[in-house]
Amino acid sequence: MRFAVIHGPNLNLLGTREPDTYGTKTLSDVNDAIQLWASEKGVTVTAFQSNVEGELVSHIQTVGTVADGIVINPAAYTHTSIAIRDALLAVGVPAVEVHLSNTDARESFRRHSTIADIVVGRVIGLGAAGYTLALSGLWEHLQRHASSVNTGDS
Amino acid sequence: MRFAVIHGPNLNLLGTREPDTYGTKTLSDVNDAIQLWASEKGVTVTAFQSNVEGELVSHIQTVGTVADGIVINPAAYTHTSIAIRDALLAVGVPAVEVHLSNTDARESFRRHSTIADIVVGRVIGLGAAGYTLALSGLWEHLQRHASSVNTGDS
Amino acid sequence: MRFAVIHGPNLNLLGTREPDTYGTKTLSDVNDAIQLWASEKGVTVTAFQSNVEGELVSHIQTVGTVADGIVINPAAYTHTSIAIRDALLAVGVPAVEVHLSNTDARESFRRHSTIADIVVGRVIGLGAAGYTLALSGLWEHLQRHASSVNTGDS
Amino acid sequence: MRFAVIHGPNLNLLGTREPDTYGTKTLSDVNDAIQLWASEKGVTVTAFQSNVEGELVSHIQTVGTVADGIVINPAAYTHTSIAIRDALLAVGVPAVEVHLSNTDARESFRRHSTIADIVVGRVIGLGAAGYTLALSGLWEHLQRHASSVNTGDS
Amino acid sequence: MRFAVIHGPNLNLLGTREPDTYGTKTLSDVNDAIQLWASEKGVTVTAFQSNVEGELVSHIQTVGTVADGIVINPAAYTHTSIAIRDALLAVGVPAVEVHLSNTDARESFRRHSTIADIVVGRVIGLGAAGYTLALSGLWEHLQRHASSVNTGDS
Amino acid sequence: MRFAVIHGPNLNLLGTREPDTYGTKTLSDVNDAIQLWASEKGVTVTAFQSNVEGELVSHIQTVGTVADGIVINPAAYTHTSIAIRDALLAVGVPAVEVHLSNTDARESFRRHSTIADIVVGRVIGLGAAGYTLALSGLWEHLQRHASSVNTGDS
Amino acid sequence: MRFAVIHGPNLNLLGTREPDTYGTKTLSDVNDAIQLWASEKGVTVTAFQSNVEGELVSHIQTVGTVADGIVINPAAYTHTSIAIRDALLAVGVPAVEVHLSNTDARESFRRHSTIADIVVGRVIGLGAAGYTLALSGLWEHLQRHASSVNTGDS
Amino acid sequence: MRFAVIHGPNLNLLGTREPDTYGTKTLSDVNDAIQLWASEKGVTVTAFQSNVEGELVSHIQTVGTVADGIVINPAAYTHTSIAIRDALLAVGVPAVEVHLSNTDARESFRRHSTIADIVVGRVIGLGAAGYTLALSGLWEHLQRHASSVNTGDS
Amino acid sequence: MRFAVIHGPNLNLLGTREPDTYGTKTLSDVNDAIQLWASEKGVTVTAFQSNVEGELVSHIQTVGTVADGIVINPAAYTHTSIAIRDALLAVGVPAVEVHLSNTDARESFRRHSTIADIVVGRVIGLGAAGYTLALSGLWEHLQRHASSVNTGDS
Amino acid sequence: MRFAVIHGPNLNLLGTREPDTYGTKTLSDVNDAIQLWASEKGVTVTAFQSNVEGELVSHIQTVGTVADGIVINPAAYTHTSIAIRDALLAVGVPAVEVHLSNTDARESFRRHSTIADIVVGRVIGLGAAGYTLALSGLWEHLQRHASSVNTGDS
Amino acid sequence: MRFAVIHGPNLNLLGTREPDTYGTKTLSDVNDAIQLWASEKGVTVTAFQSNVEGELVSHIQTVGTVADGIVINPAAYTHTSIAIRDALLAVGVPAVEVHLSNTDARESFRRHSTIADIVVGRVIGLGAAGYTLALSGLWEHLQRHASSVNTGDS
Amino acid sequence: MRFAVIHGPNLNLLGTREPDTYGTKTLSDVNDAIQLWASEKGVTVTAFQSNVEGELVSHIQTVGTVADGIVINPAAYTHTSIAIRDALLAVGVPAVEVHLSNTDARESFRRHSTIADIVVGRVIGLGAAGYTLALSGLWEHLQRHASSVNTGDS
Repeated sequence: MRFAVIHGPNLNLLGTREPDTYGTKTLSDVNDAIQLWASEKGVTVTAFQSNVEGELVSHIQTVGTVADGIVINPAAYTHTSIAIRDALLAVGVPAVEVHLSNTDARESFRRHSTIADIVVGRVIGLGAAGYTLALSGLWEHLQRHASSVNTGDS
Repeated sequence: MRFAVIHGPNLNLLGTREPDTYGTKTLSDVNDAIQLWASEKGVTVTAFQSNVEGELVSHIQTVGTVADGIVINPAAYTHTSIAIRDALLAVGVPAVEVHLSNTDARESFRRHSTIADIVVGRVIGLGAAGYTLALSGLWEHLQRHASSVNTGDS
Repeated sequence: MRFAVIHGPNLNLLGTREPDTYGTKTLSDVNDAIQLWASEKGVTVTAFQSNVEGELVSHIQTVGTVADGIVINPAAYTHTSIAIRDALLAVGVPAVEVHLSNTDARESFRRHSTIADIVVGRVIGLGAAGYTLALSGLWEHLQRHASSVNTGDS
Repeated sequence: MRFAVIHGPNLNLLGTREPDTYGTKTLSDVNDAIQLWASEKGVTVTAFQSNVEGELVSHIQTVGTVADGIVINPAAYTHTSIAIRDALLAVGVPAVEVHLSNTDARESFRRHSTIADIVVGRVIGLGAAGYTLALSGLWEHLQRHASSVNTGDS
Repeated sequence: MRFAVIHGPNLNLLGTREPDTYGTKTLSDVNDAIQLWASEKGVTVTAFQSNVEGELVSHIQTVGTVADGIVINPAAYTHTSIAIRDALLAVGVPAVEVHLSNTDARESFRRHSTIADIVVGRVIGLGAAGYTLALSGLWEHLQRHASSVNTGDS
Repeated sequence: MRFAVIHGPNLNLLGTREPDTYGTKTLSDVNDAIQLWASEKGVTVTAFQSNVEGELVSHIQTVGTVADGIVINPAAYTHTSIAIRDALLAVGVPAVEVHLSNTDARESFRRHSTIADIVVGRVIGLGAAGYTLALSGLWEHLQRHASSVNTGDS
Repeated sequence: MRFAVIHGPNLNLLGTREPDTYGTKTLSDVNDAIQLWASEKGVTVTAFQSNVEGELVSHIQTVGTVADGIVINPAAYTHTSIAIRDALLAVGVPAVEVHLSNTDARESFRRHSTIADIVVGRVIGLGAAGYTLALSGLWEHLQRHASSVNTGDS
Repeated sequence: MRFAVIHGPNLNLLGTREPDTYGTKTLSDVNDAIQLWASEKGVTVTAFQSNVEGELVSHIQTVGTVADGIVINPAAYTHTSIAIRDALLAVGVPAVEVHLSNTDARESFRRHSTIADIVVGRVIGLGAAGYTLALSGLWEHLQRHASSVNTGDS
Repeated sequence: MRFAVIHGPNLNLLGTREPDTYGTKTLSDVNDAIQLWASEKGVTVTAFQSNVEGELVSHIQTVGTVADGIVINPAAYTHTSIAIRDALLAVGVPAVEVHLSNTDARESFRRHSTIADIVVGRVIGLGAAGYTLALSGLWEHLQRHASSVNTGDS
Repeated sequence: MRFAVIHGPNLNLLGTREPDTYGTKTLSDVNDAIQLWASEKGVTVTAFQSNVEGELVSHIQTVGTVADGIVINPAAYTHTSIAIRDALLAVGVPAVEVHLSNTDARESFRRHSTIADIVVGRVIGLGAAGYTLALSGLWEHLQRHASSVNTGDS
Repeated sequence: MRFAVIHGPNLNLLGTREPDTYGTKTLSDVNDAIQLWASEKGVTVTAFQSNVEGELVSHIQTVGTVADGIVINPAAYTHTSIAIRDALLAVGVPAVEVHLSNTDARESFRRHSTIADIVVGRVIGLGAAGYTLALSGLWEHLQRHASSVNTGDS
Repeated sequence: MRFAVIHGPNLNLLGTREPDTYGTKTLSDVNDAIQLWASEKGVTVTAFQSNVEGELVSHIQTVGTVADGIVINPAAYTHTSIAIRDALLAVGVPAVEVHLSNTDARESFRRHSTIADIVVGRVIGLGAAGYTLALSGLWEHLQRHASSVNTGDS
């Protein structure tokens, strides 16, 4: 089983950026924790970060042909990107959305996610631990379901 | 360490109620899984369900004096109850919100939660597994923080 | 054939409460008229009233396992209760919504019903007669349809 | 006692038009059922259909001078016609609004009726039976009230 | 002259609950101050608290037959309960609404009260003193008016 | 193959009406161009214009039994008529919507079309040429699809 | 100089329709007063009434080629008809809008007029006298201006 | 009979201010025309202009004790002043609202008038002639009605 | 201890202005009752009224340097004046807002107060008695708090 | 004559991406059809696709200096990109907007296009054929007009 | 060259009023800095402050006949005054809007300015320095443009 | 002291792009003026332009470690980019926002800036001079403040 973890814009600054909001772990720390989870579960997990919306779209297209599931934190693009939504719909791979901070407790524009209705689930506000919880949730989801992407037509 | 799990209205029908949306596990199955997690972690977890908003309020008041954390799925009251929000604020215990189904992929009124901005975090759409993921997330959160309830003033 | 009639909060005051709006018949008068209709049709009809949202939820769960149809006037909870909506969805029994007064001719918040899109039909503004008209409409509906609850996904 | 039944646009196609939504009875079937009800009650009922808003307005003006009550299904004009509302207000005859399908369970624009607040009552979603239920409700209403049109000033 | 004071959900925690917002007086302290006012004025005042919306509705129905006036702090139900509004309208007893904190200076949803337009008046943000000020205001109101509940039809 | 072209209100003034917006071609010129296209394709095309919404409804009902496709420019009724939408839904014939001017570049109320979500496609702002482009698009659409009207239920 | 006065739906009932709102003068009385004004001014004025939106559109098209100005009371169509707006724009004749009652003091939907921004001016709430005041205002306007219809592009 | 004409802020600049919008007549010209009308009718008319909202309020209070009617062009305060509305309600004298330009054809905020629902009528867009038309309309109104101010409670 | 009472526009007409809404006491009666309260409490209270928003602003600036508290009824400016809000914020003196009538039971624009979130509290709908209740509330507030103006940043 | 066709994000997946929505033709098939049209018309057409908004902006800048017209399907950026709108405005070349699926029949956010009011026209929902229809429409438009970009200032 | 600087309500308190928001410089300090700039540039600058909206209107009318440019900080009236907007439009002198604090970072109602679309430019949040930056910007603007006020018709 | 100036999409076309809106100076002219200001002040200023949102994000991250202040004109991304906002928040360097044209006088979507509440200040509509005015304002700001980025939590 293969999973892809995708980090959105400014997450490369993790650990230095607004530590009160995002914590003091760096992106490298987060990716190390992900690999630890991966080796325990015996699955392959890749990680990717970009500040460019279109590169995130292209990366989803690429991993979409090989991954069994995607864990994605689109960061700022969560609230504005329909292109990322369309990429996830296009590849049809089940995804779980992660946010480090509780986006519902911040500015009102952070309450809207363009992918919330097409992902399997969401893990919000639980810090860096959210990534491995999301991977676990996705792993359990895949045990139960054959086909999985939410078509979002309701 | 003591945790309280609180289930809102109609969750007593779990397993028979709209299984396409909520899965086939009964509330008893869910509570068994929670106890399994509790015994593995070596923590005490209580579980409570009610269809009455005011009884959920009273229960939060009661467990609020002894629990270190609360995992709550307010079900239908998620979208309408300010009394439950006020109870959580009053007891000041860190809480994580859980939803079995992806509430963001259903009717638009399910997108709003009256407690979203005062909980530590949220686990949505990951089925019955969401409860133990929430407990794990809450457990990790308590390792990191001394005081914890979100005051919600922003 | 078995039907359940469910009366929401403050309907126990019928006859004395705002008679210009709700008429002078008491709840007992209304239930007598319902039993008259029931005996003429040769069906069993139960009646229940509560001021507590959660008790209405529990009652729907209970009758939901035995009734062929529900006629419900959720009164004030019409405009605020998602828990009642969820209970009706959970039991999957066809229901007709009744209002004594014309709720569309009063305060604007009375124009919204949380169950309007999941009931078979609605009878509004026709006074106490609305209950037997609703029972008749439900009876005719059951003649025509095998499965009946509106899933509300549009 | 004299009643007028008025059918709005596209109801002439009843039976062939979207049968999943509107049923398989033709307008002629509906009018036959209305006449059956009329002969049982011993009242005179006329029926009229037009696709032209202004012709429906003129017809209301005409029957308004002789009818004791009006049962009207304005169909698509329910949601857009203030001229029909004004005609009903002008003639001052009590009216009941009927819809074959549950308009609250369809497109959101069907939830608004321009006459909802000036009719005596509404019967929605109960199919062709809705017409005779509306006539019965109107008949009972007239037993109880001397003057009857809702002035709509609140 | 008889008055009823009604306290909504979570007010049983007064004194311990968010003291920065609600002060350090307990509900018992508040009720003692009310009785002091009552004995000075020579009127009878009862006090009641519940976390259950439906129990508050039932209590209003009960005191409504004997009280000359009601002072009510519906707490969280201020913003969501139409059932309490309907109960107040049903009993037709003049009421004054009280809030300990300035609800207009907190979350935006606290700015809306479902009973604001049907009470005689409102006393907001003046702490525990607000109850006796409200009782005084209600007492003065009753000196001036024969009939008193606001029908809310505008 | 048979197509029907339907022109809404004020299009009979084409060529003289606001030529800066609608161009200098008359309706007769437009219909000649349509017949030229029809003869080149070897299909039959009828054309109809009315200022009366109900006559447009009736015409759709009539052509709906014989036409394989409809090209319609409802003009002002685009923004207000649900009756025309219902007629198109009732006959179930695939349709393409045409507008001579770019309705999205004019008054904001022209941005909403009551039929936009139930037509196969839309050709906007391309002047008189829009009709033959729409006919071509509809013709190509019919090559590809067996059943075709958009049910508009999402 | 030639003027056209155009009366919308239900104005044929004037004098009998809701006299508290519209006064006791009949349409014939109004038209007589208009002719009196016309003979005093030495201008020709025609008057037309229809309940059918499309007939009002056609009449505007017809008089638009000969009249120097239009006084129009679109009645209920004031609030819904874009076709009448388009007809006025198409003929390019200066128009004044008249309403017998103060439409701003009635239901909120009467506050919006689809032609308010393309007419020269509006006379509202001054009863039957409003027609001759509007004609006077239009007459004075034509003394001052060569070209006159408001293009409405702001 | 005594009338008061009241001019709001910036109308002292009439004739020089944006002549394309407001015309080339000065306020003095307008007041001369008003006096001409007054002498023809044999009534007394006073005129007052101020840039200060509170002075307009005070003036309404003063003339309110002696005038039989008020013609008011509140200019910019039309859209923002509740104090002027309250003054008109307080004195209870029938008023007609005048605007020189067509306020419905300009910026959207000019479409709202705080006094529209409490005046007898409105004359909009007919230039300086609007004042004498308003006076005529008010004069005719006073012939017909004993009491006259619109209470604005609907 | 020194208090300032400030009355907004049109309150000089109290007693004659809309007595059904505002009562029959004059402003002089109100100020007498305030002085009675002041002498009983042994505090100094000044009173001021103006129809001019800017004069109310200047008065707040002046009393703000000497008063310990302000009781203000901004009347119509309650709903429109940010200048008065800014003056209260600038002087930083605790204030209580008073309204004679229940502003929440009247036109919808009266539900919004520009100062509601920066005052200590509000007394609404309790008639002339509201002023002395507000003074009492403010007096009790000052017993409890050192610094007091609400900064309004939430 | 030179035209540029520009394809937005995820269109590189055409044929494999959600074929029920977008059809089975690949982007290469679409571009072949465009070249066929180009050779028939004797014009030069270039085609470009990118997932990166900024690259689409840069490409518009580049082709804007040489192309006589642009056909653009901004895909997901249709609903979010003001940068693409600004690029089209900056180069001032007439453009036609194309969408393969009927964007008005899908999620509500797809109904808004940031370029709808600045393009010459739009072709929506007609599948891959939409590109050549758009090119034809643009070609005809250029026959008729010297200058062409819509300035969008209304 | 002559410039006028205009200060709105409460700016006379500058230096003492909320120094965290507005800084510690007094209005006199600000005006001194303005005169320093004026003498360096060799232009005449007048300064004026008032708490009364109508006096600000009158002052704009007065300076409007002699000034080449206006720098205005309408303070609280920024968000509510259309009279000031109309005065600026009436005199047609180019203006620059200044705010000491960043109005976009405070209460949401401070984000709207009634003059933002009719001024040449805006300088926000740069403290007292903002006035001289605005004067410099206006001075540079006048070098480039002959006619200058923004008509605001878009 | 080191400043960074950042230019958003399409600003590379400055001078040729819509010169009526943006002026005739090229980006190179603007950058020359900036360097002139820099040399006069004795500070280092870098300048950067990109059409790609993600590249602007990366550039902010890079300069954020060395610059004392940022002057940014995000152009079209002003209205849509949360990623740029997050980058500015992440680096914590004080910034001033610049717009060449008056964005408040153009399309309504240009009135919203995603960074308005987190920058120190804004300079709008003053053309190319706005950059050096912003640099001056930022320079003066840094003289006064130790810490500077606006956290935007209100």
